[in-house]
Amino acid sequence: MPLPPRILLKLSCPDRIGIVAAVSTLIAELRGCIVEAQHHSDVSSRRFFMRQVIDTAEMNLTLEQVRERFRPLAQKFDMDWLLRDEALKKRVAILVSKQDHCLNDLLYRWRSGELNFELAGVISNHLDCQSFVAWHGVPYAHIAVQKDDKAAAFAAVRRQIEQWDIDTIVLARYMQILPPELCAVYSGRIINIHHSFLPSFVGPRPYHQAFERGVKWVGATSHYVTAELDAGPIIEQDATRTHHAHDVEQMIRIGRDVEAAVLARALRLHLEDRVFVIGNKTVVFAA
Amino acid sequence: MPLPPRILLKLSCPDRIGIVAAVSTLIAELRGCIVEAQHHSDVSSRRFFMRQVIDTAEMNLTLEQVRERFRPLAQKFDMDWLLRDEALKKRVAILVSKQDHCLNDLLYRWRSGELNFELAGVISNHLDCQSFVAWHGVPYAHIAVQKDDKAAAFAAVRRQIEQWDIDTIVLARYMQILPPELCAVYSGRIINIHHSFLPSFVGPRPYHQAFERGVKWVGATSHYVTAELDAGPIIEQDATRTHHAHDVEQMIRIGRDVEAAVLARALRLHLEDRVFVIGNKTVVFAA
Amino acid sequence: MPLPPRILLKLSCPDRIGIVAAVSTLIAELRGCIVEAQHHSDVSSRRFFMRQVIDTAEMNLTLEQVRERFRPLAQKFDMDWLLRDEALKKRVAILVSKQDHCLNDLLYRWRSGELNFELAGVISNHLDCQSFVAWHGVPYAHIAVQKDDKAAAFAAVRRQIEQWDIDTIVLARYMQILPPELCAVYSGRIINIHHSFLPSFVGPRPYHQAFERGVKWVGATSHYVTAELDAGPIIEQDATRTHHAHDVEQMIRIGRDVEAAVLARALRLHLEDRVFVIGNKTVVFAA
Amino acid sequence: MPLPPRILLKLSCPDRIGIVAAVSTLIAELRGCIVEAQHHSDVSSRRFFMRQVIDTAEMNLTLEQVRERFRPLAQKFDMDWLLRDEALKKRVAILVSKQDHCLNDLLYRWRSGELNFELAGVISNHLDCQSFVAWHGVPYAHIAVQKDDKAAAFAAVRRQIEQWDIDTIVLARYMQILPPELCAVYSGRIINIHHSFLPSFVGPRPYHQAFERGVKWVGATSHYVTAELDAGPIIEQDATRTHHAHDVEQMIRIGRDVEAAVLARALRLHLEDRVFVIGNKTVVFAA
Repeated sequence: MPLPPRILLKLSCPDRIGIVAAVSTLIAELRGCIVEAQHHSDVSSRRFFMRQVIDTAEMNLTLEQVRERFRPLAQKFDMDWLLRDEALKKRVAILVSKQDHCLNDLLYRWRSGELNFELAGVISNHLDCQSFVAWHGVPYAHIAVQKDDKAAAFAAVRRQIEQWDIDTIVLARYMQILPPELCAVYSGRIINIHHSFLPSFVGPRPYHQAFERGVKWVGATSHYVTAELDAGPIIEQDATRTHHAHDVEQMIRIGRDVEAAVLARALRLHLEDRVFVIGNKTVVFAA
Repeated sequence: MPLPPRILLKLSCPDRIGIVAAVSTLIAELRGCIVEAQHHSDVSSRRFFMRQVIDTAEMNLTLEQVRERFRPLAQKFDMDWLLRDEALKKRVAILVSKQDHCLNDLLYRWRSGELNFELAGVISNHLDCQSFVAWHGVPYAHIAVQKDDKAAAFAAVRRQIEQWDIDTIVLARYMQILPPELCAVYSGRIINIHHSFLPSFVGPRPYHQAFERGVKWVGATSHYVTAELDAGPIIEQDATRTHHAHDVEQMIRIGRDVEAAVLARALRLHLEDRVFVIGNKTVVFAA
Repeated sequence: MPLPPRILLKLSCPDRIGIVAAVSTLIAELRGCIVEAQHHSDVSSRRFFMRQVIDTAEMNLTLEQVRERFRPLAQKFDMDWLLRDEALKKRVAILVSKQDHCLNDLLYRWRSGELNFELAGVISNHLDCQSFVAWHGVPYAHIAVQKDDKAAAFAAVRRQIEQWDIDTIVLARYMQILPPELCAVYSGRIINIHHSFLPSFVGPRPYHQAFERGVKWVGATSHYVTAELDAGPIIEQDATRTHHAHDVEQMIRIGRDVEAAVLARALRLHLEDRVFVIGNKTVVFAA
Repeated sequence: MPLPPRILLKLSCPDRIGIVAAVSTLIAELRGCIVEAQHHSDVSSRRFFMRQVIDTAEMNLTLEQVRERFRPLAQKFDMDWLLRDEALKKRVAILVSKQDHCLNDLLYRWRSGELNFELAGVISNHLDCQSFVAWHGVPYAHIAVQKDDKAAAFAAVRRQIEQWDIDTIVLARYMQILPPELCAVYSGRIINIHHSFLPSFVGPRPYHQAFERGVKWVGATSHYVTAELDAGPIIEQDATRTHHAHDVEQMIRIGRDVEAAVLARALRLHLEDRVFVIGNKTVVFAA
């Protein structure tokens, strides 16, 4: 199997002199042409992060052979790493409740090819979005969440996700709190959109909180989900102006656009393996 | 004494039908020409807010006569109101510590005439800014604040403010917490700049807090000072992007520009009597 | 027929003293409660512009009776005016070619009720968007445009628009230039989105032009269509950052989001009768 | 002479495989620690650009020795390159006319140390800014420009610049057009701020042009000066919202803040050697 036109190398390791030299020398030896490269040395953790996109036009190897050649180097520097076809599509499930603005946005970016992923299916605790998802030819799993038996519902959610062989879970305004064990299993692979400019207004009804406080901007934050509500590593956020004449409904309306935009940008960064989690923060190699 | 070219009318009162009609009819009777007008009905408080700028070219009265004509109407509708020369300069004191970026910005806008106020003087607990202020021909009161006798220092600050006959106090990165009684006396007339996007990161070292949380934007908030720290009515705020490669020092650097800009905009809104305080929120009639 | 809960008054007239007084006095006499009001005196044209939203809870008239009462006043001041149910839906046709990001965005805002209009149908010179529009239950008129007989195509477009009884035409990346007579008939009612920050990069392939010039932002502009290409009155515009590493394709990608957002905002302003055309400029009473 | 704590390497060369490997291998051999690195392959020109900041704590060489070691590699790859103390201050002259908002901003960033440069002096065709510059202890050369003998004035400007041994010339709202030969001699080292969002509104009175066109944003652009007016390579630009109620004076006022901010950011990028000129465009390695 020949190499894909471009391969992506993502790695992190303890920081020391010579990492870039070793990696780029190997890439040059294999006749790889670096088309995009970013690295970062995190001072607090003394850890090094790197992402490279390599054009393979002059390389005469299989992907597995490239990995073989890379392995000793990865061991020497104690790297967490992945090396993959840049065009690889991650398998994604979108979870949604009734609010469908983020879902609509993601479905559009998916069907137009703007975001590069395989949409395995949509899971919802409601039926509202079923027919729109169906038009896209995408499976829709309706898993109701009963207040007195959430465990059963989340077990069903997890089975569905495992059955679909999901890599990345997107909470596109899914108004349920995932159980900690699910968060742990898919750590760094569940992306939520919270409708506030975190850390302001954690928890329910953030626009109501924003209205009460009288802020002049409302925002949205996309982050990896952890066991602690709205406290996971932030991937991306943005905000838009509001003013005294906006009531909560109007804040919600203008906020929707920010939510959809922020979630889409965060998902793109994740799909392109541009995000590294380091403690409760992220390193993001933006395009 | 003839009328100034433009007069400014600012009022609030319990909301009911006929306020705009009554006010605008009176202005028309007096041959005033409305050049800028804004009003707002606050639903929660059922209160009405209005600001008008009136060209007086065709009016044949003194300012006091206009006020006389307005008084019965104000009583009828139970208004809080003021009617003044639009060009009137409020008397301002700027309080500063060592960080001088906001001070530099305000001094420039003052000396260039961009912001319309009388700068009575600068008060500081340090000497760092003295010579720069002196170049402007502006009095500089150095009032050191000793940890074990803050009361004495704030009494001196208050005396200085009273002696200068100050209307509005600007805390341009003044790193001291004013005592509650001073906040009360100058309620709605002390403007602070806090170096975070409130309500995120209340209190000391907000950039350090922001760095720890891993946010992707840092901001600044200008608000009226109340007895509760960083919790007063917000006038204006803004934010700017940051990322993983910024350390705290770089956050502080990019944040400075936002702080200076936000404070200058908030002060302009205040000087032009565009801000109404309603509970812990503001109505802001932006230009 | 009782009055709707809210009525909207939009007017412009030669500027003079007493307009606001006359209008607001009449509204008060009719027991109307002003919930939103904006006015503007344009200095160059000496023209006055006003928009009011009036709560009718205490009014005991029909809409036609209110209009009757308003008519003498409108004549006295020589007003262009309209007085309508605030909730009235304008009848809209969307014209689209192959690029469907703006269409997708508008369809979502329409079906979710975020934008208040009646979607009479979609006209396209291509078939690409047909099935997606059909899912919405919206008519789709495919009118191909042949290079050598554009007149016939535009005649068909016009017949379709007349048959659908259209008020407002939205060019949602419709890649054809409408004939001047159509622009004239629907003057002030055809809204285009141009994919540049006008007046930069008029005409075809603006992202290519932007790439060649090496600008650091790309933008989009929504304007009323006039006979002169991309030169009509601007309603709304916005821009987003780009940089040296973006090729034209990436500029196009990030630009799409700006285009959709700007067009949606412009359409909202138009639907809510917040836009006045004055020469080749607009007065926009934003919410 | 020991190495400074950090050195900066900036280079460009024809693109080919192995450049990064060669450079990073050499740096590692010399025990340099890369703390910041960016590169870019320009597709149109097939040219490669790189900027590295290297911590020298473990290097045992002089700066000249490092250059010696680098020279063969530079020759092999046909590089344009520089290798310098990262903390090196470029010698700068600021040229200004009457508008002093950019000057005030730059002087503040200079005296606070936020921008790292040596301010050799200020040149002006007016006396307005003299005393403010003098307060800073900075030389002020008043060189009047007579309409009928501009050549003499620009000869004097050039002599002054040469006498001050200037590296970088900043036109901080200098309202004179420099002669082509001066632009040529200091090619890539004269930075102008133009008060429009280029390429919109080239030439004089851009705010008036913007007002006439009815745009909804006004902006500013910082670019390297070339013989063609306002057409040189763009370094940085930004814009701010305006609306129908702003007259030209208000556009000028809100534009000033954008001008000062854009010029300061562009100058920072230039001082830190983050900008490469490639034809009429720039590669900018932002921090």
